[in-house]
Amino acid sequence: MQSERMKIIIINGPNLNLLGVREPETYGYQSFEDFFETLRKDFSGIELHYFQSNSEGVLIDELHKHGFSANGIILNAGALTHTSVALADAISSISTPVIEVHLSNIFKRESFRHRSFIAPVCLGSVSGFGLLSYRLAVEAFLNQ
Amino acid sequence: MQSERMKIIIINGPNLNLLGVREPETYGYQSFEDFFETLRKDFSGIELHYFQSNSEGVLIDELHKHGFSANGIILNAGALTHTSVALADAISSISTPVIEVHLSNIFKRESFRHRSFIAPVCLGSVSGFGLLSYRLAVEAFLNQ
Amino acid sequence: MQSERMKIIIINGPNLNLLGVREPETYGYQSFEDFFETLRKDFSGIELHYFQSNSEGVLIDELHKHGFSANGIILNAGALTHTSVALADAISSISTPVIEVHLSNIFKRESFRHRSFIAPVCLGSVSGFGLLSYRLAVEAFLNQ
Amino acid sequence: MQSERMKIIIINGPNLNLLGVREPETYGYQSFEDFFETLRKDFSGIELHYFQSNSEGVLIDELHKHGFSANGIILNAGALTHTSVALADAISSISTPVIEVHLSNIFKRESFRHRSFIAPVCLGSVSGFGLLSYRLAVEAFLNQ
Amino acid sequence: MQSERMKIIIINGPNLNLLGVREPETYGYQSFEDFFETLRKDFSGIELHYFQSNSEGVLIDELHKHGFSANGIILNAGALTHTSVALADAISSISTPVIEVHLSNIFKRESFRHRSFIAPVCLGSVSGFGLLSYRLAVEAFLNQ
Amino acid sequence: MQSERMKIIIINGPNLNLLGVREPETYGYQSFEDFFETLRKDFSGIELHYFQSNSEGVLIDELHKHGFSANGIILNAGALTHTSVALADAISSISTPVIEVHLSNIFKRESFRHRSFIAPVCLGSVSGFGLLSYRLAVEAFLNQ
Amino acid sequence: MQSERMKIIIINGPNLNLLGVREPETYGYQSFEDFFETLRKDFSGIELHYFQSNSEGVLIDELHKHGFSANGIILNAGALTHTSVALADAISSISTPVIEVHLSNIFKRESFRHRSFIAPVCLGSVSGFGLLSYRLAVEAFLNQ
Amino acid sequence: MQSERMKIIIINGPNLNLLGVREPETYGYQSFEDFFETLRKDFSGIELHYFQSNSEGVLIDELHKHGFSANGIILNAGALTHTSVALADAISSISTPVIEVHLSNIFKRESFRHRSFIAPVCLGSVSGFGLLSYRLAVEAFLNQ
Amino acid sequence: MQSERMKIIIINGPNLNLLGVREPETYGYQSFEDFFETLRKDFSGIELHYFQSNSEGVLIDELHKHGFSANGIILNAGALTHTSVALADAISSISTPVIEVHLSNIFKRESFRHRSFIAPVCLGSVSGFGLLSYRLAVEAFLNQ
Amino acid sequence: MQSERMKIIIINGPNLNLLGVREPETYGYQSFEDFFETLRKDFSGIELHYFQSNSEGVLIDELHKHGFSANGIILNAGALTHTSVALADAISSISTPVIEVHLSNIFKRESFRHRSFIAPVCLGSVSGFGLLSYRLAVEAFLNQ
Amino acid sequence: MQSERMKIIIINGPNLNLLGVREPETYGYQSFEDFFETLRKDFSGIELHYFQSNSEGVLIDELHKHGFSANGIILNAGALTHTSVALADAISSISTPVIEVHLSNIFKRESFRHRSFIAPVCLGSVSGFGLLSYRLAVEAFLNQ
Amino acid sequence: MQSERMKIIIINGPNLNLLGVREPETYGYQSFEDFFETLRKDFSGIELHYFQSNSEGVLIDELHKHGFSANGIILNAGALTHTSVALADAISSISTPVIEVHLSNIFKRESFRHRSFIAPVCLGSVSGFGLLSYRLAVEAFLNQ
Repeated sequence: MQSERMKIIIINGPNLNLLGVREPETYGYQSFEDFFETLRKDFSGIELHYFQSNSEGVLIDELHKHGFSANGIILNAGALTHTSVALADAISSISTPVIEVHLSNIFKRESFRHRSFIAPVCLGSVSGFGLLSYRLAVEAFLNQ
Repeated sequence: MQSERMKIIIINGPNLNLLGVREPETYGYQSFEDFFETLRKDFSGIELHYFQSNSEGVLIDELHKHGFSANGIILNAGALTHTSVALADAISSISTPVIEVHLSNIFKRESFRHRSFIAPVCLGSVSGFGLLSYRLAVEAFLNQ
Repeated sequence: MQSERMKIIIINGPNLNLLGVREPETYGYQSFEDFFETLRKDFSGIELHYFQSNSEGVLIDELHKHGFSANGIILNAGALTHTSVALADAISSISTPVIEVHLSNIFKRESFRHRSFIAPVCLGSVSGFGLLSYRLAVEAFLNQ
Repeated sequence: MQSERMKIIIINGPNLNLLGVREPETYGYQSFEDFFETLRKDFSGIELHYFQSNSEGVLIDELHKHGFSANGIILNAGALTHTSVALADAISSISTPVIEVHLSNIFKRESFRHRSFIAPVCLGSVSGFGLLSYRLAVEAFLNQ
Repeated sequence: MQSERMKIIIINGPNLNLLGVREPETYGYQSFEDFFETLRKDFSGIELHYFQSNSEGVLIDELHKHGFSANGIILNAGALTHTSVALADAISSISTPVIEVHLSNIFKRESFRHRSFIAPVCLGSVSGFGLLSYRLAVEAFLNQ
Repeated sequence: MQSERMKIIIINGPNLNLLGVREPETYGYQSFEDFFETLRKDFSGIELHYFQSNSEGVLIDELHKHGFSANGIILNAGALTHTSVALADAISSISTPVIEVHLSNIFKRESFRHRSFIAPVCLGSVSGFGLLSYRLAVEAFLNQ
Repeated sequence: MQSERMKIIIINGPNLNLLGVREPETYGYQSFEDFFETLRKDFSGIELHYFQSNSEGVLIDELHKHGFSANGIILNAGALTHTSVALADAISSISTPVIEVHLSNIFKRESFRHRSFIAPVCLGSVSGFGLLSYRLAVEAFLNQ
Repeated sequence: MQSERMKIIIINGPNLNLLGVREPETYGYQSFEDFFETLRKDFSGIELHYFQSNSEGVLIDELHKHGFSANGIILNAGALTHTSVALADAISSISTPVIEVHLSNIFKRESFRHRSFIAPVCLGSVSGFGLLSYRLAVEAFLNQ
Repeated sequence: MQSERMKIIIINGPNLNLLGVREPETYGYQSFEDFFETLRKDFSGIELHYFQSNSEGVLIDELHKHGFSANGIILNAGALTHTSVALADAISSISTPVIEVHLSNIFKRESFRHRSFIAPVCLGSVSGFGLLSYRLAVEAFLNQ
Repeated sequence: MQSERMKIIIINGPNLNLLGVREPETYGYQSFEDFFETLRKDFSGIELHYFQSNSEGVLIDELHKHGFSANGIILNAGALTHTSVALADAISSISTPVIEVHLSNIFKRESFRHRSFIAPVCLGSVSGFGLLSYRLAVEAFLNQ
Repeated sequence: MQSERMKIIIINGPNLNLLGVREPETYGYQSFEDFFETLRKDFSGIELHYFQSNSEGVLIDELHKHGFSANGIILNAGALTHTSVALADAISSISTPVIEVHLSNIFKRESFRHRSFIAPVCLGSVSGFGLLSYRLAVEAFLNQ
Repeated sequence: MQSERMKIIIINGPNLNLLGVREPETYGYQSFEDFFETLRKDFSGIELHYFQSNSEGVLIDELHKHGFSANGIILNAGALTHTSVALADAISSISTPVIEVHLSNIFKRESFRHRSFIAPVCLGSVSGFGLLSYRLAVEAFLNQ
């Protein structure tokens, strides 16, 4: 898209710092940090960054920080997907396109998880493929 | 996964036969058939099939036909996504995993399109990337 | 509108093939086919066609078939009016304007019949006048 | 129907007095009064009257006044369609049949406009054809 | 209550002027005016007044007019019972107590008639006894 | 109505046995038994009976016992008004007409008290007048 | 199932004691007791018992009493079907399987009768066949 | 009922063709065709037919075809039970009585399966007994 | 804005004529007329008018009368705020901007007062400051 | 609190008599009677009573009986928690404070169990600790 | 109000730091900081402070910090208006009165923005006038 | 439970830092810190910690920090109880059991406070006993 390297930011929301610790028999023994290293190597031609916070406000700050300079943002907002209008407004306020990802199929869970405030303001979404969801989102940015 | 070539079926639901004809300035001038030819070439190592129908019953027949032998099914159920419990039951009844795709971000549209009967019984979903959604779904099957 | 004869298609949905058979004391002893013959004679200056099916998918096929060439479509979708998003999408996808008709006043019936997916995508609607509803719809196309 | 001339009353509700003034590029530059003159000439064999008020109570008075002697009433209740149970009761109380008309397709508008208290107590309805809706309603009375 | 004669006002809302005309086999052949004469004779020790209007605003004016001097108001708000917050506010604004009456049992009718804005701001209510409802309301004021 | 004395049964539901004990500053210091003695004297020309129970099933038994022989039943179902379909069915099953009474205006209370299963199957209702409600109900039976 | 005779208990809820008395032109002139005698004769190889009460608590006591020893319970809970969570819990608490029966088709009646707390905890249900419903339920137990 | 043999049609809806294939440990290893052969032998005195389709429209055609000549229709509409108003209208349109059957207890499943459009227009229903449900439905027709 | 004096119309809806009379300890002893005189003096550079009615229709007439010539309209629609679609349509139909005012904070009151049909078609709103709300609205027009 | 011994009544509602019998692997092999004996010994300084019934009416009678003399009532209303307005009214009617207890966490169960009519009229609640819930409730009364 | 200078705090919530950056053609090229400088000069007689955060918790801390000493707080809670009960509780907990402001008319936006948790606990609100809304709020505090 | 001292963490959410400051006549003049000192002394055999924050994200961090090592967590999430899915997910993610406490009976307050996202993932809950609620929660952990 540009002669400079494409810059993509991965932002993870609440509780995703526990990946690899929480229920490893289900979610796997790999922490997100380890997965991120692999991802970085596999997509060495682009610039990849990673950030996690359990606080809605801090996530909004991060979206503002990169939202006018990065080429793409991959956001797994965790439970804030279903409750945070402020996060959705932050996505609307910035110019960088955002792709929503989820590890699991959120429609298999409780009905209050079927509503997404994030989805209507994102470019697209990928969900249900575990960590592979992030990889597909990176490819989506590369192929557009 | 197996020494034989992986077999993936793409099934499109109602009105998707009009791609390339209907509002081409929005959806592009490419028909799904043309796109499918490109896809087939790009993934020449696997066996790809394509089917389209405007009828719920015929779509269910097709799911039954491939649902015990193919390695993956990519389903864009169109408007039936929001109304067809029978299609969802067909997906539950077969053993082949199904990935749900949508050309556009359905959460940007009317609220009756926010409910998906298909989503809870699929492996995962990819939506909002136009025809690229199908390509990502194929990659999802290849990387699992 | 054009020097060629105007072409109007009447499409009837589920159970309307039983007109004249079902509860004739209420709906009259005239079949739709008989009524259609009279209509054709009364509007001999235009080309009128008639089609009926009990299948949503077949009705969508018919809308696609005429939806880029006919001057107008008169649709009585029967019970699909209240449940079919796919039929509504088909109407949105074609360029021929569609008028919705109903024999009876659907607002006098059960509350699930008060919702119409068809109405928002049609040019206008005529309901409650029995077979006269179709005649008024033809006149609506002629007077536009 | 009778040897005497048929008498039909057109009653318009709130804000319809602004036709031709309000957003003329959308609703046309013709006032309802001008349209009514044309209508009267085109249906010279019948007796046509016209009344408008912005007040629910005055509209009810008018329905009572003609509701036991006129042959038909054509009612565009405007926004009262969606809120007035009293107007609906007035229609139920009289013996003259009433046809509901609307200039635009109310199902294309906000969801609170999808509910009609008037519809269930009317003979039938015609909507979405602009001023032509009134003409079709007159014809409906003539052809019954 | 006072040495002066008690003053009670009966106020009827929309469509109640048709009593004795509309469906007499159901509601009886007696007009409200005739009934009122009988009532006046039977309760000659008190001052009884009667007012009817089809307009919400005029009914509010009447409530304001008597609401600081009469001893009691008997109100049959007709269909406005279910839709008029303004009428309810008028009752709250005055100091005279109001009794709600209905000729028929409104709970036997459509569900939108089960909600009463009037009821929570009235002293009590009497419904379902035809014209006898008014007589019982007068007695309620006399026995308090 | 008959040469024999009219027979009217008053049936009180749950918690109404506490009248005169519970919050006497609000509901008065008079027990229902005392009030009933006065009522009996005032209407000495008719046969009046009184029954109270806190049990839905026992109240249904009582309705069955008198529901084919008494001339009228006055029922204050208390909180069962809002929850008991079985009590409503008992009223539908018997031939004696039932009048619903309440001491207070139930529409001034919590929203779950606005729904009455009893109301649609009763002849009429009187509420909000304290113990006077019962007296008016007796008069309603006498004046029919 | 066992060498001993199978034991089946029929339990009827509120108002079902009026069968044969209430609206006999609809429900027939036969009391449940008479029907039960016929049933007993027709199924002389098994032990059949019958119990009826208008009280939820007494019905729960009866379910507890037989719910660990009988081979099957046939329950027509009447109106409690739609309101009693406690009855449903009683069915869950016992080990004997329960079949739900209804004389009439409850889905043809008011919408609050469409919800059944009983259904999800029963083995199966038979409804709409009048007294024949009970006979089919007995056969269901015999054929399992 | 008649000297000629009674004719009963069994119609199965979407996905029921997979019986015996899908989850046999739950639904059993018997296909519906095998079960039907047994049924036919057990009820050799009557004429039994069987039809299955995954298409709503084709099921409606079948109901029309037999709905004026057969003595009874046994319908397992599968998932269409919860979504098809058109199928319900077809049942209303024909003169042959229809009994609704289900293999499993639909009230134990997701809440969108608790609504049945079919139930209010059927004679009765039998559900939760597996294939035995069909047998009981046949007996219901024989015993009426 | 113009060399001529700015013209602003204040329009008050139902029950607001009772200000100063009704509950003066809460709303103050000042009538709206007295307040209006003060306001006029304080803003002597502009032309201020005041109108009140209890009738929806009369309020619509007033909006039409000034809605194409005044520079601003300040509307306190009282209870009609929550029920009148017709008043909202009148605001949409005129070209003069309208500011919504309320004396009290309507969100502190019953939930049916939380819905405003007026708000979405107004320029802005000021509520909760008593009569000061009107003054702020005038300043809003002056500062735009 | 007083020199006399504190008196606390434990009241259990429907199906709680089956404790120790029903699903002992989940709820334990201890009957409530056995647990109560232990409790009595552990709190020998106060007077403890225990009562159980499956009938709403009988439970109300018990609340009335102790509700003006005991120092505290501990109520596990079982399933009536979610359906009984009458029981809630009984608690409001008495002067003794009531603490609500539940063995299990009712919010982990079906959504109709999330509504409690009892909670808003109780002093406090303890739930989710099995039989320990009762012990904590006793301590709550002792520590106030 | 006091001889000391009045102290007013302006608190802005999520995404309001982007004013002047985000969509300047719509919201203007002025940052909030620039606007605040002007405001400070225009109201030099009072003490004005400004604070912004994207974090709900930090906003609550700020409300606590000033909520017992400042004379007034002007709060634009942004999207938290519609989701934060905790922010509303913070307003309830402090003694300083709070005025709610919004730049745009929130009722013209998505329906989930029509609910405000903040409104019921604020003194009043001003919305729809852009940055002028803040100025009017300051005047409201000065004129009380 | 273990030879080491049991470790219990008390975590308080938004606005609970104002205890003793806010409305002391209602909530008491004791700050939580003072109460905590007393609690620590009374339970000197165990290790007790206390933490408070107004930020959802910081509370989640604290739950993660102790959620794999402490023996129990006592959480009063304040208003976040009703809105925070992320906090509920944090509780699900950790292995330490959590008990929910509330000072007041949340069911006596606004209906939006009746929904708890926290409750279904906690071990149990204690509410309505003021600061005593915390003490009972500690005892619950000690007695398990």
